[in-house]
Amino acid sequence: MDKVSYSNLSPNSFLERSALIYPEKPAVVYQDKSYTYAEFYERVNRLAGSLKQVGVKSGDRVAFLVPNLPAMLEGHYGPLRVGAILVAMNIRLSSREIAYILNHSQAKILVFDSELAPVIRSIKDQIPSVTDFIQVVDTVPIADDIPSREYESFLDESPPGNHFTDLANEIDTISLNYTSGTTGSPKGVEYHARGAYLNALAVATGTGLTSESVYLWTLPMFHCNGWCFTWGVTAVGATHICMRRVDPPGIYGLIRDKNVTHLCCAPTILTSMYSAPQARFEDLSGVNIVTGGAVPAPQVIRKIENMGARLDHAYGLTETFGPHTMCIEQPHWDKLTLEQRNGIKARQGVPYVNSGPMLRIVDEKMMDVPKDGMTVGEVVMRGNNVMSGYFNDAQGTAEVFRGGWFHSGDLAVWHADGYIELKDRIKDVIISGGENISSQEVEKVIMEHPAVLEVSVIGVSDDKWGEVPKAFVVLEDGIKVTENEIIQFTRERLAHFKCPKYVEFGELPKTATGKIQKFRLRERGI
Amino acid sequence: MDKVSYSNLSPNSFLERSALIYPEKPAVVYQDKSYTYAEFYERVNRLAGSLKQVGVKSGDRVAFLVPNLPAMLEGHYGPLRVGAILVAMNIRLSSREIAYILNHSQAKILVFDSELAPVIRSIKDQIPSVTDFIQVVDTVPIADDIPSREYESFLDESPPGNHFTDLANEIDTISLNYTSGTTGSPKGVEYHARGAYLNALAVATGTGLTSESVYLWTLPMFHCNGWCFTWGVTAVGATHICMRRVDPPGIYGLIRDKNVTHLCCAPTILTSMYSAPQARFEDLSGVNIVTGGAVPAPQVIRKIENMGARLDHAYGLTETFGPHTMCIEQPHWDKLTLEQRNGIKARQGVPYVNSGPMLRIVDEKMMDVPKDGMTVGEVVMRGNNVMSGYFNDAQGTAEVFRGGWFHSGDLAVWHADGYIELKDRIKDVIISGGENISSQEVEKVIMEHPAVLEVSVIGVSDDKWGEVPKAFVVLEDGIKVTENEIIQFTRERLAHFKCPKYVEFGELPKTATGKIQKFRLRERGI
Repeated sequence: MDKVSYSNLSPNSFLERSALIYPEKPAVVYQDKSYTYAEFYERVNRLAGSLKQVGVKSGDRVAFLVPNLPAMLEGHYGPLRVGAILVAMNIRLSSREIAYILNHSQAKILVFDSELAPVIRSIKDQIPSVTDFIQVVDTVPIADDIPSREYESFLDESPPGNHFTDLANEIDTISLNYTSGTTGSPKGVEYHARGAYLNALAVATGTGLTSESVYLWTLPMFHCNGWCFTWGVTAVGATHICMRRVDPPGIYGLIRDKNVTHLCCAPTILTSMYSAPQARFEDLSGVNIVTGGAVPAPQVIRKIENMGARLDHAYGLTETFGPHTMCIEQPHWDKLTLEQRNGIKARQGVPYVNSGPMLRIVDEKMMDVPKDGMTVGEVVMRGNNVMSGYFNDAQGTAEVFRGGWFHSGDLAVWHADGYIELKDRIKDVIISGGENISSQEVEKVIMEHPAVLEVSVIGVSDDKWGEVPKAFVVLEDGIKVTENEIIQFTRERLAHFKCPKYVEFGELPKTATGKIQKFRLRERGI
Repeated sequence: MDKVSYSNLSPNSFLERSALIYPEKPAVVYQDKSYTYAEFYERVNRLAGSLKQVGVKSGDRVAFLVPNLPAMLEGHYGPLRVGAILVAMNIRLSSREIAYILNHSQAKILVFDSELAPVIRSIKDQIPSVTDFIQVVDTVPIADDIPSREYESFLDESPPGNHFTDLANEIDTISLNYTSGTTGSPKGVEYHARGAYLNALAVATGTGLTSESVYLWTLPMFHCNGWCFTWGVTAVGATHICMRRVDPPGIYGLIRDKNVTHLCCAPTILTSMYSAPQARFEDLSGVNIVTGGAVPAPQVIRKIENMGARLDHAYGLTETFGPHTMCIEQPHWDKLTLEQRNGIKARQGVPYVNSGPMLRIVDEKMMDVPKDGMTVGEVVMRGNNVMSGYFNDAQGTAEVFRGGWFHSGDLAVWHADGYIELKDRIKDVIISGGENISSQEVEKVIMEHPAVLEVSVIGVSDDKWGEVPKAFVVLEDGIKVTENEIIQFTRERLAHFKCPKYVEFGELPKTATGKIQKFRLRERGI
């Protein structure tokens, strides 16, 4: 093909275009700061120039340990502009985990928020690949004892000129997203530019983003690059509203003050939103919410929709650039009862527009399971929205790519209408007396109990049955329920072998993105 | 790249997905017929199967001479499904031109509407490459004297099964669109699957198409594959409303009956719409119109917007998959006077989201002209929304691709805000006494005259000046104006050397897409 008719698909082009078309429009807002698209572009170009000046070359890794601040968003464009690879790290990771990621990715540059200096201080002598430290100063002064540049000064050091270098190929890696590593060491999921570009357009199309949209950063940008909204919001020329700490008062305040039209988050954030004391005074009309990362319980859907929001449920994995399916609403669902509808809305749905659609549910021989809503198989995907592989881990990549498809590790059924419904993570299935129990099925039933705010069910070892279910329950404020009451509640609704043998009350351990960490619960045991 | 992480970008995937997600939803409506997405998909698959059965192979050309009927839409997916190439021909072409295109493309199959049998009858012995004739029967019975199959029976002959064959490469050609050939023989513009896919998403995103949209086929599908809306409407799962003959009563009737939300057309169609006697009773609220193919005069914009429509102005060429730029509205335009705003809206605007943005206005040395709104240069483009080249015409391709950019042949200025504004086709510029006159500039002024409905200005030869402008004018019904009054009107508003020396009243020759054929006017001369 003649190069006249071909250009690399890369999210960089979205920023180029929006800076051209909307130079005066607010692109990035944080507290009292607001950057127009012209300014956002200019800052990104300076970040690129400064990175180049300190020796960053095409393919080098540039790590960020920064919350949802403008600098983190700029991190999604500056390294890319010189062909380098972003490594956006979860700010809640331990210093040990961060050291692991920096060493595994061989990051050359580390940009970190000065509030996180204690974490970096403790590992700065264990990460020899890092040649330059840059501190983003927001809430606390720069940590002088770590030899660093301050981020704004670093931008100022950029030589003049346009610092764009096109990728050699659109399938080049532009981002590494490390998995949480619940089953071993974190894995560096490689995102190619082509997939990032197509997913950005898909999330924009799928959620109705336009140049008039205002997107609130409740979802961490370090989580699958913010489900590609870091690029999708820019693609349409909408406004990014940054947010350092995600709590209900902050969310509600920004929704009101900034006329937020879109946000994404895990269901646990939604739970915190509707259960906040102020919730009764808040109105979410005109707010489009995409939730994912865990299955939203029907009551979560109902309570958020009752506040006026439009809620969509998306499903995907780090390995699929975040969202891969969405539970797209069908007109005929209007005729269902609220309970039926919310049950259906908790399904994971159907592939996004960019997916092919190349998603299947297969048995162990890689044959499609019947679309009967009953037969459980593994969700597998392929195509442009699947990662290139795990960085420097050919064996791990080959393992999840076996048979020519990416294996999600998620068990699901296929409904007659083509919608998929997750049953459990393969590793979360509880095997009791030779029977498989879906931990999610048990969780859904317990969530129906009016006193229950959150729940997580795992298998704990049992001499007789091998494993038995145990439920960890968070109760609504001020309500008391006994272990026995919960067990009795489930026995009235489930086959008895599926009912928890133990119930423990208290807080649930969560990841930075609000996912419940079952491996921590398993460590606790009975 | 592992094939797990790569799939060809092809519009075929849009139909696959919409058939999966919206099986019961109306996909294609024509008069009393309505096909759901499941049916549309099934018909396309049968078309593919039947084409395969009569020997169509990957890369073969399948020609269509069919108005905006369901069969023409199916023609955008059936050949593609077996890797063949659609040649959608303008139904208003002469038999000589159609024979030329069929022979040049070496079409193997010809699908034609039985109303057009006289055209085919006269050339059927001059097109040896065509092995099978298929007639779409709509308004008149099948023409028995041309050995043919009837289209519906042809679909019925398909063997069972899934007839999908993936393209070898996403840059394979899937469609040939022949230019009108005003400067020589028609050229076969090759569309690659990648560009068709990306343009489909771009027009969907750019015009706010959603699964709830209803798209009316006022723009011929044979014109740049309906500006890629043939694929874009399907991508989002919206409804296609087919329409055989495009006239104001038909358009208004369908807008009312089918709750049309989107349509595209040339400005002359808009003129016919607002000047129809019934226009005063019609309401275009909620209708999004994209106009292009010619510059909409400010009064056209005003009159259509006054009827309630939202009007967007797009610009592109057959060689750029149709629309390449759109005059995207800016919030601050609200503060302009109506006249200023409509003047700005007549600009061609800024690149679509998929374009790079890789559009420039250059001087003869391929250097950017300044963004001063004054310096005229040629519009050049490159990237994924530029054709692969002209079919079997390496020399013609090399000529328009010189310097690594596609040369549009359009002269334009670049405004400070990045918006482009066309001044003229290079070949339409009038050179009078050594001065360049933009025919479009003169046309715009004449359009301001209250009695003028349409106008076209060309250069005619003049002994003293080389060329002088001549205006061809269509007057509003029942209004009389003299040649001298028009000339006087322009002399009050333009430098005198730019004013027409001659004015002729009467109808204007137009292409099937409503474009004025200046070459026909030139044949008329003074």
